[in-house]
Amino acid sequence: MSTFTGKLDIHKGVTVSSAEEPCPDIKEFTARLEASLRKWQDAKLRGVWFRVAVNHVQWIPILSQNGFIIHNAYGDTITMCRWIQREEANRIPNYAHNMVGAGAVVINDQNQVLVVQERYRNRPYWKLPGGYVDPGEDIVCAAQREVLEETNVRTEFESLVTFRHSLEAVFGCSDLYFVVRLRPLTSEILKQDVEIDNAMWMDVDEFLNHPEVHENNRMFVRKSIENKANGILMARDTTFHPITQKPQALYYITKSPDS
Amino acid sequence: MSTFTGKLDIHKGVTVSSAEEPCPDIKEFTARLEASLRKWQDAKLRGVWFRVAVNHVQWIPILSQNGFIIHNAYGDTITMCRWIQREEANRIPNYAHNMVGAGAVVINDQNQVLVVQERYRNRPYWKLPGGYVDPGEDIVCAAQREVLEETNVRTEFESLVTFRHSLEAVFGCSDLYFVVRLRPLTSEILKQDVEIDNAMWMDVDEFLNHPEVHENNRMFVRKSIENKANGILMARDTTFHPITQKPQALYYITKSPDS
Repeated sequence: MSTFTGKLDIHKGVTVSSAEEPCPDIKEFTARLEASLRKWQDAKLRGVWFRVAVNHVQWIPILSQNGFIIHNAYGDTITMCRWIQREEANRIPNYAHNMVGAGAVVINDQNQVLVVQERYRNRPYWKLPGGYVDPGEDIVCAAQREVLEETNVRTEFESLVTFRHSLEAVFGCSDLYFVVRLRPLTSEILKQDVEIDNAMWMDVDEFLNHPEVHENNRMFVRKSIENKANGILMARDTTFHPITQKPQALYYITKSPDS
Repeated sequence: MSTFTGKLDIHKGVTVSSAEEPCPDIKEFTARLEASLRKWQDAKLRGVWFRVAVNHVQWIPILSQNGFIIHNAYGDTITMCRWIQREEANRIPNYAHNMVGAGAVVINDQNQVLVVQERYRNRPYWKLPGGYVDPGEDIVCAAQREVLEETNVRTEFESLVTFRHSLEAVFGCSDLYFVVRLRPLTSEILKQDVEIDNAMWMDVDEFLNHPEVHENNRMFVRKSIENKANGILMARDTTFHPITQKPQALYYITKSPDS
């Protein structure tokens, strides 16, 4: 009986990809899957992964009947997994379930804060520029990109101000929103047309008392000013992870160099 | 020609669920989908969502041929989406792509830090207790739960110490790891058997100089001690989001009340 080969990983797991080992005949797939599971159980493997392309989805119900659950899906691939050693608890972590966004407090030398009104809202709230962090993107870079896209103002990083973790947010996920203080390097506003109705430098006092500003946004600006006055900030070091050697950013509380 | 009904949302989107409007015949599905898309385009809808159950995956290749892409999948449902107004840019945010974990610096009155050795590692590193945040779980609660599960020590929250954002991490995601300072309320260690080989209170100086401790972990403990000495902390308020009224936690830098 033929079996799947798959690719072994350092966690004693194996990954089969439908694109690399296609098997369109469902009867043959079922038999090959069962023989493969016996082989992997005997070999004391642990997590078994199947990456199923959109054009091979007929595998999915068979995998489900064999104890596989959906782990994640994006692009044109659905990934299912199963822990095959029955005497051990399943140690496969859940896939990501937190949305991540970033916004910016940008205050100029005239004590004005950079604010925008988003299109497609029921009420014309004034808010800080911001949006979702892209896949693989650094949080501070995301905040700078959103400021640039929405207002065309270039900035440099000063401090992380605060972050919010909301439960029960969009797509059944939780939601993390990071607010950074950015120093403006340019002042002229050229607003983006698709998502933004208005963009302006607004006096900080006006923003803090404006009826069309949400309490979270008010708090972000208040904290930013308070931290600066107190000479404390949340700095950021970009280094490499000691195990994986991948890029990482470390955020930590410290006193301002000039305080 | 019959069309799908779906459920409208506040963003001018519509969601069809295969469990609620089954259509096992693929020819009929294809015709009904095309008629539905025309109907929704005429009605000026924007995002169209199909939630496809594991037993109805034959819909997926047809949806793909009609311009739908996979958005996310978990449990027994795969969700595909398409922006149907061709003159507008697609404004559907990506699904979550950041893993989120939490760990804890727990230091007792004898200046000892609570540390564990994980099973299934190539080398017996001593590390701070911690792990992934569960779906819908608060970050501080996750850190307290991990400490309790791994060592049976009960704790209370003092401060967020630092966080790390790593790119190119597991499952093609980025990875956020939050480190909180927790005050121990109990001292006796009862280690968990499945994932933890050893757990102990280790002198802080020994931990900071131990060869089997990673630089990130050393930094987490150093920053925790430094913040406390400097009288600055990252506090947490649990409130409700002003728009959604869902639970949220706000983290912000402040001076210690006793500093």
